[in-house]
Amino acid sequence: MPHIDLPAGEPGIRGPMRFRPETAKPLNELAEVLLRGPSTLSRGERELIAAYVSRLNACTFCELSHSAFAELQLEQGRALVNQVKDAPDSAEVTPKLRALLRIAGAVQRGGKNVGEADVAAARELGATDVEIHDTVLIAAAFCMYNRYVDGLATWQPADPDDYLERGRALVERGYIESVPTASAA
Amino acid sequence: MPHIDLPAGEPGIRGPMRFRPETAKPLNELAEVLLRGPSTLSRGERELIAAYVSRLNACTFCELSHSAFAELQLEQGRALVNQVKDAPDSAEVTPKLRALLRIAGAVQRGGKNVGEADVAAARELGATDVEIHDTVLIAAAFCMYNRYVDGLATWQPADPDDYLERGRALVERGYIESVPTASAA
Repeated sequence: MPHIDLPAGEPGIRGPMRFRPETAKPLNELAEVLLRGPSTLSRGERELIAAYVSRLNACTFCELSHSAFAELQLEQGRALVNQVKDAPDSAEVTPKLRALLRIAGAVQRGGKNVGEADVAAARELGATDVEIHDTVLIAAAFCMYNRYVDGLATWQPADPDDYLERGRALVERGYIESVPTASAA
Repeated sequence: MPHIDLPAGEPGIRGPMRFRPETAKPLNELAEVLLRGPSTLSRGERELIAAYVSRLNACTFCELSHSAFAELQLEQGRALVNQVKDAPDSAEVTPKLRALLRIAGAVQRGGKNVGEADVAAARELGATDVEIHDTVLIAAAFCMYNRYVDGLATWQPADPDDYLERGRALVERGYIESVPTASAA
């Protein structure tokens, strides 16, 4: 049971977002600009970073929702998403994205774990300063979203397929439009 | 030296915020609503939670800036801020705030560490659902801000007094107005 009295029937972050629309607004705006705004990283690639960090933080709702968002926006679908979460160093993504995933993993353990060598490796493989910045911030932001969702003990379905319908709405309309009350906030 | 090419002379989060105003905007809006928006917790109390979590994450810039913001908005000043960071369980704050600080500390270690007993204790001492929600989200948000600031290896002055001047501007004008480029974003 959630730690506070959240609206029934809304899984994961959707309960607290409906409970507190004042904070839902910037939380959704941050996700929208980071994961769907103009970028040289594709939306699918950015959702992979989000899903990977959420797996590291063992947050079921965030892992499975962002896995669904990644799956729906990547040609290679769920198989690739699972590769990235299970074994990012050998996943069939670009070498640049593998290097960015290593940076994201370091951020998850704590910001000071990002080493100069990690950044140099990513840059050598073509990563720009904006891509490195955005990777660090995506990873940091999911250390927030994951703690928010788990810290309130929200309800989190465990079946990946349960995340596909909302995933399709998200892919079509984005974070700001598809999350309850955010647009009314 | 920072991991990416940030504007010179801007400490901590101010460099990346100037570098990427698109993400600075929701980041500042989140801080503004959480730490300064309408609440039954005072601004000083909320800054204490931010400073405490930043200390736990060993992020010098965030710890010292939010310590300055707390100091400037609490009658008891720096002595109380140091008490909270050094020994929150015996700090001379309200019993309710001590209980909320325990929840914040649990969130810092990971969302699943918030126990039913922690929440029951806070509620017994008068904490409302919104106060518990906001404490969890403040703690979670600083797990993001701290990783963002350290993950890019930003420049972070070590003297608490260096944070007072910007602290006074923040107290007067808030997060959105007092951080560079955010208003232009």
